[in-house]
Amino acid sequence: MDLVAGIDIGGTKTKLGLVDRDGRCMVQSFFRTKEYPDFDEFLDKIQESINALIAESGEVNLLGLGIGAPNASNARGTIEHAPNLAWKGIVPLLEPLKQRIDVPMKVTNDANAAALGEMLFGNAKGMKDFVVITLGTGLGSGIVSNGQMIYGHDGFAGELGHFAMLPEDGRLTGLDVRGGLEAYVSATGLKRTVLYMMSKYMEPSRFRSIAFDDLHGEEITEAAEAGDPIAVRAFEYTGKILGIALANFTTFSQPEAFFLVGGLANCGDWIFDPATRYMEENLLQVYKGKVKILPSGIAEKNAAVSGAAALIWSDLQA
Amino acid sequence: MDLVAGIDIGGTKTKLGLVDRDGRCMVQSFFRTKEYPDFDEFLDKIQESINALIAESGEVNLLGLGIGAPNASNARGTIEHAPNLAWKGIVPLLEPLKQRIDVPMKVTNDANAAALGEMLFGNAKGMKDFVVITLGTGLGSGIVSNGQMIYGHDGFAGELGHFAMLPEDGRLTGLDVRGGLEAYVSATGLKRTVLYMMSKYMEPSRFRSIAFDDLHGEEITEAAEAGDPIAVRAFEYTGKILGIALANFTTFSQPEAFFLVGGLANCGDWIFDPATRYMEENLLQVYKGKVKILPSGIAEKNAAVSGAAALIWSDLQA
Repeated sequence: MDLVAGIDIGGTKTKLGLVDRDGRCMVQSFFRTKEYPDFDEFLDKIQESINALIAESGEVNLLGLGIGAPNASNARGTIEHAPNLAWKGIVPLLEPLKQRIDVPMKVTNDANAAALGEMLFGNAKGMKDFVVITLGTGLGSGIVSNGQMIYGHDGFAGELGHFAMLPEDGRLTGLDVRGGLEAYVSATGLKRTVLYMMSKYMEPSRFRSIAFDDLHGEEITEAAEAGDPIAVRAFEYTGKILGIALANFTTFSQPEAFFLVGGLANCGDWIFDPATRYMEENLLQVYKGKVKILPSGIAEKNAAVSGAAALIWSDLQA
Repeated sequence: MDLVAGIDIGGTKTKLGLVDRDGRCMVQSFFRTKEYPDFDEFLDKIQESINALIAESGEVNLLGLGIGAPNASNARGTIEHAPNLAWKGIVPLLEPLKQRIDVPMKVTNDANAAALGEMLFGNAKGMKDFVVITLGTGLGSGIVSNGQMIYGHDGFAGELGHFAMLPEDGRLTGLDVRGGLEAYVSATGLKRTVLYMMSKYMEPSRFRSIAFDDLHGEEITEAAEAGDPIAVRAFEYTGKILGIALANFTTFSQPEAFFLVGGLANCGDWIFDPATRYMEENLLQVYKGKVKILPSGIAEKNAAVSGAAALIWSDLQA
């Protein structure tokens, strides 16, 4: 059976799977990234895991291997200065991995992989111009124009989490960008906004008895559903900042749709509603009614792995 | 001789020329756009002007006709709701023009035409990822990624003049965008900043005796050269806003270079210096030292016409 290996390297887990041409993940596994601070041992572990998956699947014709990783350069096949990974500096990834597994290989950052996955297997099928926004601890983005991934001159296009929306008096992101989008629109951003709303309004809230470090994103959705005024305000504010940002991003590449994927996107209408409302309100006349905000069409469990595999499948199906 | 007609439709003048494969404008002419409020008569005038240019040039093999126009949709061949033109609503352009001159035709907005011209004939030769910023009365932009023009889903990508840089307390653009870039970075924006600086500082300036309506961009450069502190501050501020904007835009498509073209770009170091300084200071670590701000490589006199012709030449040379 023709399959492509997809690997998602995250700060916590590295997920692997074998993916068919329709994006179905036939077998998968994972291991804890932090258990392999030595990069050579990490590569050995990947090789071993892929071999185990192949053995598990029976007859496999491995067509290639796609990798999604933070701070990956697709042009150089490296991971560069990734703040959440143990390997420091510029780490060559594809070259040493190819010596272990000799198949066509590609790497890109996780949000670009998600965008390719959405185009090949998900809700962006047939679209030529769209943007995927991944909402996790931070905010990532993958941009497709003219049916092609936008990698940029050096492989680092699509860092919209660090776009300065409120440069004058804004929050700092983890990379010290004043007013950067991900300081507002992300799991962490939503938690910061809960604090901000409690500082601004004296309304009662279940969060007055919970410390920041003990606060989890899902609880904020639950609280909003139960009518907690601080949680409701926090979602409205987060959606507003996101909606205004998407209206602004439209002036760049005029996408047909923005896809919200992962984490915060699972809060459903609490985030989609205000985002859509504020985007529409802030769009230039020429764009009004022409831009959609949509959910992912890929089961979240497999999205990162099948997105990584799409790096190879998109070449094979071209 | 193989030539392509280039037409630049502006609010004041419509310029026409015949352009060879190296971007040289062999003959050119213009007429006043406002003298043709009837669109059919305007099209007749274009036909007549092209025929006159062909007669003037001797033996011409007309390979096609490219048009740059404000608010043009390349997908539909129309001009749509252009605020500075007399023809209102959605105006079909290519279809009726093709009935008069039967050659391959394309239309796009003037900034996109400038970007194509720069790629084919100017300083962006060989570049695959760059952005052209046109600085006139307003601010236009043309974005190229992967060697292709980014038109967007509906033909209106690249409206960066209406990107809201300072959404909380900013100036309004002509399209009512709060804090929109062109309210700061454009001939009009620079004039507004001269007033702002005179409101903020009591330093002497030649501009204290000149009314806003009598103020011209070139005078601000002259004043800065002569050490006028208000003019110097106005350029520093304009370059700062532009530099921060370009640093932010880099998170989108990571271009190799931004080209500043026309109007304000002719102020030279007064605008390039602060823009470069503030861009570099505000770039994410991963982009630092990798993005250039460059002048156009096309003589300004012919830039719009040869850019329009590049719409056709880029297809023929592909």
